Parts: sequence; C-alpha cells; structure tokens
Amino acid sequence: MPMDFFSSQAESLSALFAPRAIAVVGASSNAQKIGGIPVDYQRRFGFEGALYTVNPNAERIQELPAFPSLRAIGQPVDLAILAVPSALVDGALDDAIAAGVKGVVLFSSGFAEVGTEGAAAQVRLGDKARAAGVRLVGPNCLGFMNIARHVYATFSPAPGVGRVMPGRIGLVSQSGAFGAYAYAMARARGVGLSLWATTGNEADVQVADCLAWLAQDPGTDVIMAYMEGCRDGPRLRAALALAQANGKPVVMVKVGRTALGAEAAASHTAALAGDDAVYDAVFRQYGVLRARNLTEFFDLAHSAAVAGRPRDRSIGLFTLSGGVGALMADEASAQGLDAQPLSDAAQDTLRNWVPFAAPRNPVDITGQVTNDMTLIERTARVMLDDRGFASWMGFLAAAGASDAFWPVLRSLVTSLREAYPDTLLAVSTLLSPERRAELEAMRCLVFADPSDGIRTIAALAGLKPAAAVAAAPTSIAPSLTLAPGTMSEPDALALLANAGVPVVAHRVVRSADEAAAAAEALGEAVVVKIVSADIPHKSDVGGVALGLRGAAQARAAFERTRDHALTARPEARLDGALVARMLTGGVECIAGVHRDPVFGPVLMFGLGGIHVETLRDVSLRALPITRDDALAMVRELRAFAILNGARGRPPVDLDSIADALCALADFAQRAGDSLDSAEINPLIARPQAEGGCVAVDALVVGRAP
Amino acid sequence: MPMDFFSSQAESLSALFAPRAIAVVGASSNAQKIGGIPVDYQRRFGFEGALYTVNPNAERIQELPAFPSLRAIGQPVDLAILAVPSALVDGALDDAIAAGVKGVVLFSSGFAEVGTEGAAAQVRLGDKARAAGVRLVGPNCLGFMNIARHVYATFSPAPGVGRVMPGRIGLVSQSGAFGAYAYAMARARGVGLSLWATTGNEADVQVADCLAWLAQDPGTDVIMAYMEGCRDGPRLRAALALAQANGKPVVMVKVGRTALGAEAAASHTAALAGDDAVYDAVFRQYGVLRARNLTEFFDLAHSAAVAGRPRDRSIGLFTLSGGVGALMADEASAQGLDAQPLSDAAQDTLRNWVPFAAPRNPVDITGQVTNDMTLIERTARVMLDDRGFASWMGFLAAAGASDAFWPVLRSLVTSLREAYPDTLLAVSTLLSPERRAELEAMRCLVFADPSDGIRTIAALAGLKPAAAVAAAPTSIAPSLTLAPGTMSEPDALALLANAGVPVVAHRVVRSADEAAAAAEALGEAVVVKIVSADIPHKSDVGGVALGLRGAAQARAAFERTRDHALTARPEARLDGALVARMLTGGVECIAGVHRDPVFGPVLMFGLGGIHVETLRDVSLRALPITRDDALAMVRELRAFAILNGARGRPPVDLDSIADALCALADFAQRAGDSLDSAEINPLIARPQAEGGCVAVDALVVGRAP
Repeated sequence: MPMDFFSSQAESLSALFAPRAIAVVGASSNAQKIGGIPVDYQRRFGFEGALYTVNPNAERIQELPAFPSLRAIGQPVDLAILAVPSALVDGALDDAIAAGVKGVVLFSSGFAEVGTEGAAAQVRLGDKARAAGVRLVGPNCLGFMNIARHVYATFSPAPGVGRVMPGRIGLVSQSGAFGAYAYAMARARGVGLSLWATTGNEADVQVADCLAWLAQDPGTDVIMAYMEGCRDGPRLRAALALAQANGKPVVMVKVGRTALGAEAAASHTAALAGDDAVYDAVFRQYGVLRARNLTEFFDLAHSAAVAGRPRDRSIGLFTLSGGVGALMADEASAQGLDAQPLSDAAQDTLRNWVPFAAPRNPVDITGQVTNDMTLIERTARVMLDDRGFASWMGFLAAAGASDAFWPVLRSLVTSLREAYPDTLLAVSTLLSPERRAELEAMRCLVFADPSDGIRTIAALAGLKPAAAVAAAPTSIAPSLTLAPGTMSEPDALALLANAGVPVVAHRVVRSADEAAAAAEALGEAVVVKIVSADIPHKSDVGGVALGLRGAAQARAAFERTRDHALTARPEARLDGALVARMLTGGVECIAGVHRDPVFGPVLMFGLGGIHVETLRDVSLRALPITRDDALAMVRELRAFAILNGARGRPPVDLDSIADALCALADFAQRAGDSLDSAEINPLIARPQAEGGCVAVDALVVGRAP
Repeated sequence: MPMDFFSSQAESLSALFAPRAIAVVGASSNAQKIGGIPVDYQRRFGFEGALYTVNPNAERIQELPAFPSLRAIGQPVDLAILAVPSALVDGALDDAIAAGVKGVVLFSSGFAEVGTEGAAAQVRLGDKARAAGVRLVGPNCLGFMNIARHVYATFSPAPGVGRVMPGRIGLVSQSGAFGAYAYAMARARGVGLSLWATTGNEADVQVADCLAWLAQDPGTDVIMAYMEGCRDGPRLRAALALAQANGKPVVMVKVGRTALGAEAAASHTAALAGDDAVYDAVFRQYGVLRARNLTEFFDLAHSAAVAGRPRDRSIGLFTLSGGVGALMADEASAQGLDAQPLSDAAQDTLRNWVPFAAPRNPVDITGQVTNDMTLIERTARVMLDDRGFASWMGFLAAAGASDAFWPVLRSLVTSLREAYPDTLLAVSTLLSPERRAELEAMRCLVFADPSDGIRTIAALAGLKPAAAVAAAPTSIAPSLTLAPGTMSEPDALALLANAGVPVVAHRVVRSADEAAAAAEALGEAVVVKIVSADIPHKSDVGGVALGLRGAAQARAAFERTRDHALTARPEARLDGALVARMLTGGVECIAGVHRDPVFGPVLMFGLGGIHVETLRDVSLRALPITRDDALAMVRELRAFAILNGARGRPPVDLDSIADALCALADFAQRAGDSLDSAEINPLIARPQAEGGCVAVDALVVGRAP
C-alpha cells in the first residue's frame, strides 16, 4: 500500500477526530443514557466548537435547542454521533450524508456481531459511507475522545468517573470494553493521552487507519494499540511502516484466537506456526513492541513517551545493594543489554572513595552512601564519563520515600540530565505520584521494581531511530503465472534455480541409459528419484534410490524405482526420473512460503527434522522482506548455534542462506496469487568453503485463480 | 538433615525472635544513630517486654537508665542487640554469654565482607556463640522485626518512615538493603508481615534457619525469602521440606552469580547447567515458587496469604469483554490452566439470558450487564455449579472504580464466598486500597491486570497440599568406596549394572579369539572398543569399530583397534577390548551425577547431542530423589515430545528411564564422597516392546578422599 494512501486518509480522519462542530443524533435529556452522555460530556468537559442535538421528539435537550434532523441544523457539521437503534441507523446515515457531515461515529450495536444479516447491513453502511466520502467509526463501538481538544464522542462512563490528563500517547482499541479499561488504567497510573479511539466492528475506519493517523499526528509521540484481528494485513503493515518511519514507537496488545482458518490449515508451515506467529513476525518486522499484558502495555508506552529510546544497548547499573545489583545484572543479561565493566582507572577512583565498593558494573557503592550522599552523583558521573553508557539506571532503595532524601534525588536527576542530555536515565525507588511526575518531567524513568526498569529499557533499546529504519522492502509485481496443482520436482527445482536459489546438480532422464550417463556426468554418488505428478510421496512407493556410484548402479536404480512405483501405483503416469548429486554433511534446513489469510505470502525458515516438527523452532516474515530481514530470520532461531558452529563444526554460510531466502521470497512475489505454497525441504546449509547452502528437494503448489 | 534438628533450633530461635527482655548494647541518646534507633523503636512502637540500654559512658539513654554492661543489668535478657564497632564485638559477645542472654543481633560490619581477616574473626564469633548455646544473627545485618510482637531489633530507617501492618507473611532476606526495600514495598502495597529478618553474613543463623522457624511459627502462613547464596545446601533443603510438609508456600528470590566454582567447572554437566540451575532444581523439588522480580515476589506471597491454593488447575473465566476474555484465555493456556468449556445445558441457560453471549469458557456475558447487574452473579453460579471449577476469575472492567457498582461487587463476592467456600475467587478490576482490602478479607484476590491474576493463580495451583507431599526421599548411607580417578569402561558398566541400570549386553575380551567368540555369543551386529584407563577418548585413536558381523570381522577388529591405539599412544596400557551388541534405533539420552559445591550430588538427565550441548535442555535434581522426581525430570525436558512419540514413532519406555535414573541415584549415594562424577552417554531410550532404555557407554570418576 503506497504511503500517500494515508495522507489522503489523514485529512478525512482529521475532520472526524478534530471536529469544529458536533451533532448528537438520538440525543437524550437523560445524561446517563447513551444519547445523553456525549451531550453532557461536550458541555461539561470544555468542547470549544459548536454542539447540536438532534431529536425529532424534543424541543430542547440538556438546555440546547433540539433539531428534528441533521439537515435541519443548517450549519456545517464535521462530526455526527449516531446514538440510535440499529433499525434507524440507515436513515440517520442518509441524513448525515445529505447534511454534508465529514465523519460519523456509530455507537449502535446489532450488526456483524449478531449474525450474517447484521454483517450484510454493516457492509452496506460502510459502502454507502465510502461512496459519499464520509468516514465512519463503528458500528458497535464506544467512539473516541480527542483529549487535547476536549472532544468526547463516546458513551463510555469512564471519563465521567474521572478524566485522563492530556498527553502525547495515542491509544486505539478495537474493543470498547478493553479501551475503557485501558482508559481507567491510564487515569489510575497518571498516563496522559492525546487520542483515545475504539473501532468496534470497523465497517470503515480500522485500527490501522487510526494508527496511521496517529503516526502523522503532531500531538502524538507514542502509539498504544489493541487488536483482536486484522481485516486488512497490507493496510496494517503500511500503517506500522509509517509509524516506524516517523520514529513513533507502537506498543501493541494482540489477542490470539489460535483456531486456524481452513486455508491456513491446508498449509504445512501455517499449521506449525499458527496465525499468531505471523502477527508476531509482522510486529517484529516493524519494530512493534508487543505487550503480553496490561502492565507491560502501560510500562512500555509510558516509558517510551517519557524517555524515548536509548542510543544503543549499553547500560551502566548503579546500586546501593549488592543483592539488587545482582538481580539487575541477571535481568540485564537475560534481556541482552550490554553492561560493560568500567575501566581500571574508573574502578580505582571508586575504590579510593569506598574501599569495599564493587566498582565494575553493576557498581555497588554500598551503604556508605548514608554517610556521604554526594557519592551517588559522583559515582554516576564517573560511570557515564568513563563508558558513555546509553542508559544509566540506579537502584536507590526505599530512599525515595523519605523526605530527607528527596532533595538529594531531585538534584541528582537535575544535574545528570543537564550534564548528559542524551542519556536515558532511570531510577528504581519508591516515590509518591507527584515526585515521580517531577522526575519524569526531566525525562527520568522511575520504577518501583528494578527488574521492570531493566526489561523496559531493553525493549526501548530494540526500537530503531527513524533514520536507521531500513528502506522499506520493495514489492515485486506478479510476472509469473503458475499452473494450479502440485508441480513435478524437476519443474519446481528449475523454477527455484531460475529465481536464484542454489539447487543441487541434477539431470532429468527418460531412460536407464540417460540415467547412467547422468550419473557419470555428475560424478561422485548420486540419487535417483522417480518423477510423477501423481506420486507426491516418492519414497513411500520405493521410488527413491540413494548412494549410487557409477553408471551401472544408476541404470539399475532407474529400472528398480520405476518398477516399484508402477507396482505400487499402476495407474500413475511417470515422467522419467531425476538423477541428482548426493550430498553428505551440512545441516538440514527447511524454507518455504505459504499464504496467510491476513498477510498473504509468508516466508518461513527453520532447521529440519525435530526442530521444525516437534520443537516448532521456525522464524517467519510476511513478504516483501529486506535482506536484513532474511538474516534476522536465520539468527532468531532458538537453535541458531547449530548453524553458527556449535560442537566445534565450522559455521555454515549464513549469507548464502539469506540470499536463498531472498530469492525464494522474490519468486513468491513474482508468482503472486498463482502461488499456493512453496517448500524447500531440505535446504542443506554448509560452510562457505563447501559451497554454501543448496536446495535438494522442492515442492511448489500452484493455486487456482 | 533430620527434621527434629529444626525443632530444637526452633526453641532457641524463639527466644531470639520473640524476646521478653531486650538490651541494646552501644545504645545512643541520638535516635537517628545506629545505637539509638532500636531504643527509640522499642519505646515508640509498643514493645511490651523489658528494655535495657547498655552504655558505659552514659547515665541515661533516651530516658532509660544506662547499664555499664549486660552483666550489670542483673535481670534476665533474652535478646542483646549489639551496635558497637567491630573491634568491640568480641568483648560484647563475651559479656552477653556471661550475662546468659539467649540471642544476639550483631549489626556491626567489618567481618567477612572486608576480607580474610574479617572472615576468620567472623568464624570465631560463630563458633563461640554456638559453643555457648547463644543464637547469633549477623554480623553485618539489619537485624529483624517481629511485627506481631512489636519487636524492632533493627536500625533500618524503613519502619521510621512508616510501619508495615501485622500479617501472616514472614519475610527473610540475606541482604539488608533488599530486605529494607521489600519492607517499604510491603508497606506501599498494604501487605502485612509476621516476622521480617535479615541474616547478613550468617556467622550462625542462616536464611534456612529462619525459613524453618517460620515453617513452624503459628503466626505465619506464607514465607518470602531472598537469597544470594547458600552456605549449607542440606540445611536449606530440610527447611524447604519442613515448610512444604507444613503446607506453607515459600516464595523465593534467588539472585545468581553465574561464575562457576572451580569444582563445578570440572564437571561437564555442571558446566552445562550452571549453579543456578541446581538451585532451580531444588526449588522445583520442594514446590518453591521462584519469583523473578519484586512484583512477582509480592504478587505470589500476598495472593498465597489471601487465597491459599486452589484444589486443582481447573478455572472458570468470566468477562464483560470478549477481547479481555481472549487475553485471559491466552494466558491461562500458556500457564497450563484447564479452562474446560461449560456443558451444553449450562451454555443454553446463558444463551437464553443473553443471546449473543459467548457461553463456553471464557464466558463473555457482554455489555448486557449494564442493563442487568444480576447477570454477573447468576452467570458465576451457573459456571461453578456446572463444572465446580477450583478457581473462578471475573474481569469486571473499570466497574470497580465506580461508586454505583461497588455494592454490586461487594455483594457478588460475599454471596459467592458463602455459596462456594472452597473456590479460589479472583476479580480483575480497579479498586481503591480500602475496597481491595475488603474483598481480600473475604479471600477474594484482586488484580488490576487480569494476566497477572491468571499467572498468579497458575503458580498457586502448582503448590501441593501438605497431605499430598510425597514422602521425603530416603537418603542411602555410603557403603561403597570408589578408587580415585577414571574407571575403565567395563568396570563402570559393571558397577552400574550391579546397581540396577540396564546395560548393553557385552563381554570383556583379552584376545582376538575371545573377541570372535564374544561376537558369536552376542549375535547380531557388535562393536569392538579397546579398554584402556590411559585412553579416555577411544574413538580419537581409532580404538572403536562399529557394525561388525560374525567372528571373522570381530577378530579383525580386535587386532585393528589394538594396532591403531598402540600406534597413536605407544605408552598406553591396554586391558583387552570390550565387545558389545550394537543397538540400532532408539533416542540417545544422557544421564549423569556430578557434585554441586552447595547441594552435593546432583542427578542430570537430557537428550544427547545438540539437546544437551547446544540447546542446554537438561533437567536436574539434587539427591536423594523419589521415583516421582525421576519421572518429572524426564517430562520437564523441553524436547520431551521426542521421547513421547513425536513424528509418529512409538513413545519410549518412560518407566524404564525413571528406574534407571533411580538406580543411578542410588549408586551415587552409596558411593558417597568417593564419587566425583558418573555419566551414562548414551543411554538409549527405546519403546517398552524393544526392551526399554539401556546404557551403552559409561564414565565413572572416583574422588580422592
């Protein structure tokens, strides 16, 4: 999806999310009712634009004149909030279109969530809105709030209980109930929001559209998103790419319904990885921070908004307690942060101050601090001057709760922030919300639990700066049409070889004589495999002969495998045999492409045998990918060490695997919708000196148009 | 360690932890100083016993008469708090012993933490106290607080800032700084404590002793412990066994210094698993809940104290939001909880009430609740009546923050608690601390984050009821003395066979003729391996021949392997050869025993090859073990599926593996300190029909006395 798709979208969504005039249709005098709440909210919470109420049965609603219809208002309306029963929605939308409104929020339920009839009605609503150029949020949603602009297009009771303060985090949730709960948590945790939006049934506006709008919103630095499922994978990817390109971290909760769709189940690789693994791969591709629960959701988003990302993974750990230092070191090491020891000179300085300090990293300056509070800042400066750590985290025990220590802590953060403006600063201590906010205003993170701090910093360190985001991978237009059904092995190998995948040396032969000649030409040991589109599992019928040396053995094997195959499957059509060089050594890998119902073609890579089938150790990426993505896929396998020289073996040629994966990915894109799945099994990975990786067997399945 | 060890200990510790009379030695008039704080605390915080101050340079201390020495008090003193410089400690301890005090808390630093001289002085202190029958906490510690009895034998500023309320959780920490922070967190989270103790350098009283005391303390239900390292593994195990037998959950933070000790590094298996893995195995053995961070530390302990353990892993999940329901289901499934669907009848009932409810499990009763609040309790009752779930958890959105909903929530919990007294009840909602406490008083857990709740319930479900704790494994007295050094392979196999480990059929032969005869006797294919104590790696010198059939091949192999070995190592002494039946198929496993510096002999089991060496997928148990432990070791491997019938193969005989592990463990115990390490590699695991598991090669190393 081209990026400029979203800039045209952004304008239409801005009229919706930042309206100058709002009308509530189905407005009620009762401020507790669905049609009364938004009227009450706009009035009480300081909406500065025009507010109209529409109710044909009332003269006045909550002290405002009531209009019989949107058209009757006679003034421009940007946003119409429809709080009417589902039976009246169609008429209300017609009225809105006729009145020239720019956007509609549709609270009403009774659509896709109640069955096929409702779903059809919902499709009609979406089509009608799109045809008229009106943006539509909902149906069956809780609406949205633009906190900065005091727009409360919602009937959620949450803001009535207490409002979230304005901030630079945008939150979008498919689920209204989840969104309302997250709103209440944001309020309880003192997290400020820019926009809060729920998308409900998504007849028109999807989570991806809100993501893209927030990615372009100057009032938003960090995006929180909750998804149950995605209707349009490419649109989501484009929105995530936009956020990444604009340097805005996205923190995502995605719940997984793990039941596999019929199409996905047909594919071997999808069955191994599950749909959710594809989402996970897409999130990884775009640097999305995936939160497993609400605590992480807020920790990550709030911390990203307060502190941004550290320059790199280096961290200086400071502690007043050796034990907590060890706890921090354990977590830092588990999270892949780099706690490099201080130089000898710096260690000597610290030991001069406190002879029994542990001065490496973590630096434990010990309880000696109680005798000399200046030790904290002096030590922090020694650490940061010595190693220039991207992040510095100090465990200051319960000191933060003490009135006596608070001035020391405030001055520590003030002076470190001034001296090291680009360092991510964090302290672990217990603080009141007010004191915490004061430190956060200086871009210093505060954690009660030091382990939470380390985990959060490690996650933020995984974000890429906008400048370092690799150029988006290039989509390749389809230029190849595969015939439906399973291709013969030689055809599959030829296609892949043509696409640039290294393929084992082989010949297709039609007779025993040709087999003999091929064996002599290929030299060394060879294998003979029957070729038949009717027999996908060749070895089950004795159609494979291994370890053949010389012309005579190959000739005999050609006849033997043909006889076996025809005995087992007399009706099968044989198209000769494939004679291939037999490889020894190397590591068996598997690479493939299958179709995901949401994201389309997905590339898979893993080690063969138990690794893929039993341990499910595979990595995935939705296409297109960059070459860096391909390398990352190889490196992120749990069993990567096996490829990288475990047990004293030479490492295999990782570059050749990345190249082969890119070639496979390009092939899949060129084949477009005509490809059902492709699998190389095995792809033998070998050291560079032995020729790198090579495909030994391949299965390509074309898809009916 | 016999259990009654701790009952005699308990009495002496009770005099220390629950003293009727306390003296502060080195008492100060300044209530901010180390010698003034405990005087101030006892007076202000309501200690009801006698309080004396000792200071030879003062007449009165904080309005109390000051005595020149402990002996001068002339009244019984249970506890002496020593707040004196390290140089005066020895004299103060003599004084305490002469005055007949029962226990001493020693704040002073300057001992093992500052070097070898200090360490020696500390050992002398401990020895002296033990010889006199005086219990000693410290040195270099923050002391303890018996919150229920208002004893504040500490100079930590933490209780001065605000006190923790009395409760039924005991907290023991090796580190003072960690302990003080945990105290402050307990206060901030409203968690009540019974005893709070820090053990510091542990000249006498160790964390294990405090654990054992708390395991027997009628005022304590749950134990929180923090350890950096353990001085006495068997004592720790005995204390954990006592807590488990008394049905008291132990929640543990153990920080890992991962540098391996010299002895551990010498052992292959220790090098693979690391010391920390042995702690982990011991914790697993005794049902300890290991917390990775402070948040888990408190969540687990507080929840265990509030709600105890659920009967089993079944759980009913209730939600007002489909999305959060999916989030809960994801977490429940990841944590191995059993969310069985409701019966069709129960589902019908719920669908009658709310046609678009999702009535399986999670039960999503939808926003319909806002129209009929009674739906929550009615639905919960249907769920619990239908399936009798051990746990029920309801996500009630932000409703808890609303004054209107609070009475509904309170009455829900009251009535469910009455109707289902044995069900673990939990709600996820946002509540003020007061309302939360009110629900907790009814044994209902409250979580802001539903995922935290699910994880906590799953952890609690892993606790065993005291009645179901397996009989402690029996220690076997040493009855076998191995010679130091590496044993020959036939000797090692013979020892293990004698111990009950199934061993491959084999013969030891001295000549080519004997080799030929052995091959005929064994039938099938055989292997020939040279036997030489001088050549541990036989295949490196060509000393192994595989796949031999018949007398002639065996005869030739005997001569060939002998010649290869003598060419490579002319000085080596050969003791003939081993002729063994060659096995095909099966899964290569590895089993072994190595010595851990803390816990002594540790049993290891894993799959061979990359699983143990690269993926480090091994399970460990400190000896002795029960047969259930042995089975659990096999089942907890990540790659267990490979043994249990992955890829369409028949499952291997797990019972035979458990039996072999028990036999190996018994052998190691009988060999006692004369065993350095034993390793069976490979242990071939096969299906029962093929004869179960069998040891093919073994390495046993004796240890110099």
